[in-house]
Amino acid sequence: MESPIHSDVLAALDQVLAERREADPDASYVADLYRRGLNRILEKIGEEATEVILAAKDFESGGAVQRDALVGEVADLWFHSLVMLTHQGLSSREILNCLEERFGLSGIDEKARRPAAR
Amino acid sequence: MESPIHSDVLAALDQVLAERREADPDASYVADLYRRGLNRILEKIGEEATEVILAAKDFESGGAVQRDALVGEVADLWFHSLVMLTHQGLSSREILNCLEERFGLSGIDEKARRPAAR
Amino acid sequence: MESPIHSDVLAALDQVLAERREADPDASYVADLYRRGLNRILEKIGEEATEVILAAKDFESGGAVQRDALVGEVADLWFHSLVMLTHQGLSSREILNCLEERFGLSGIDEKARRPAAR
Amino acid sequence: MESPIHSDVLAALDQVLAERREADPDASYVADLYRRGLNRILEKIGEEATEVILAAKDFESGGAVQRDALVGEVADLWFHSLVMLTHQGLSSREILNCLEERFGLSGIDEKARRPAAR
Repeated sequence: MESPIHSDVLAALDQVLAERREADPDASYVADLYRRGLNRILEKIGEEATEVILAAKDFESGGAVQRDALVGEVADLWFHSLVMLTHQGLSSREILNCLEERFGLSGIDEKARRPAAR
Repeated sequence: MESPIHSDVLAALDQVLAERREADPDASYVADLYRRGLNRILEKIGEEATEVILAAKDFESGGAVQRDALVGEVADLWFHSLVMLTHQGLSSREILNCLEERFGLSGIDEKARRPAAR
Repeated sequence: MESPIHSDVLAALDQVLAERREADPDASYVADLYRRGLNRILEKIGEEATEVILAAKDFESGGAVQRDALVGEVADLWFHSLVMLTHQGLSSREILNCLEERFGLSGIDEKARRPAAR
Repeated sequence: MESPIHSDVLAALDQVLAERREADPDASYVADLYRRGLNRILEKIGEEATEVILAAKDFESGGAVQRDALVGEVADLWFHSLVMLTHQGLSSREILNCLEERFGLSGIDEKARRPAAR
């Protein structure tokens, strides 16, 4: 069961990232990324995608990387995706809406919520 | 305000992706990815990361790509990240937990939920 | 010892790629890439970079990928780099000149060619 | 016309990279990459591929990036490919041989070398 707190992580993160637009770039990593601009943010997305790939390979081969490392790299990739979206005036909400539509998840969801038919 | 349905998109998607493990690879795109294995899934992550970068550049320069295209590419990147996680026995929950911990979002969240002190 | 034929591979490839600008896109893979444009060529560079990374990991872990597969992926990455350069009016010559300058290789080379000082 | 010095740039670079295996990692960038290992080298390939993509987009849109910047990024990508190959016991020679075979360039080359028939 998805806890209410859990399910709002992305909405809370959107809010943090939006607030960072007013933050001091010398004191905030995210504000510094905004200042450096889109190319720097996209370089980070490229870097994090590579790190996800390497961590997944190492996780599969039972190598040096643990499960937490793989999870951390995917979190970094999603995080920098959200930084880019916020920088362009978008947020996680558009991504979730898109996933919902593509996979008919609201339908699935609705069905799951519907009291079992007699 | 995050709607209840909206906030469960990732949990619903996790469930769909888990169910696809039993699906016919000739009839399901996701089941086909599972059959082709980790390298094929990681190739997709690399491709989608590149497409996010190109769409963001085109969106910024007011070029051919519209806002919906950029949103769609990020959705594809997240989607294939989730396919990879499911293939490795993980899910979006670990990613959200990680983001929550890193950014102290449960704290933020808790505060937002707390009734204003009198 | 570098054979004379060997050392001109990139120059020969530049010439082939330049000629493909006049070729029928329905009959030539390269002419088709030119027609589809820069984004498609850059998508290929992103894909090939990912395949290099995966092949190198598999080569290192002694897995399914052989030495020839890794070599083939790097060749694909360089090839698509040259397609992009040709599409933008550049060639391998600029890349080699840049490497030469950065690493002082013409100096190294000259020294190697100079008859040993008495 | 390809100058003799020019055409040996990659062979000279192979030699430099091989020599760096014995160099002090605290004094040599390449020796430091070897010490850090394959994952770090592959991260650099991912980073440089992203920078090629961004520079090509900026070059196309007549933006901030000049022709020299695009050339420099491709040189960086090729350079780090060669670092990886050297680390794995390979060199540019295998890549050029592969390109030669795939594109029948030795044939092209031979024809170009043949004195015009009387």
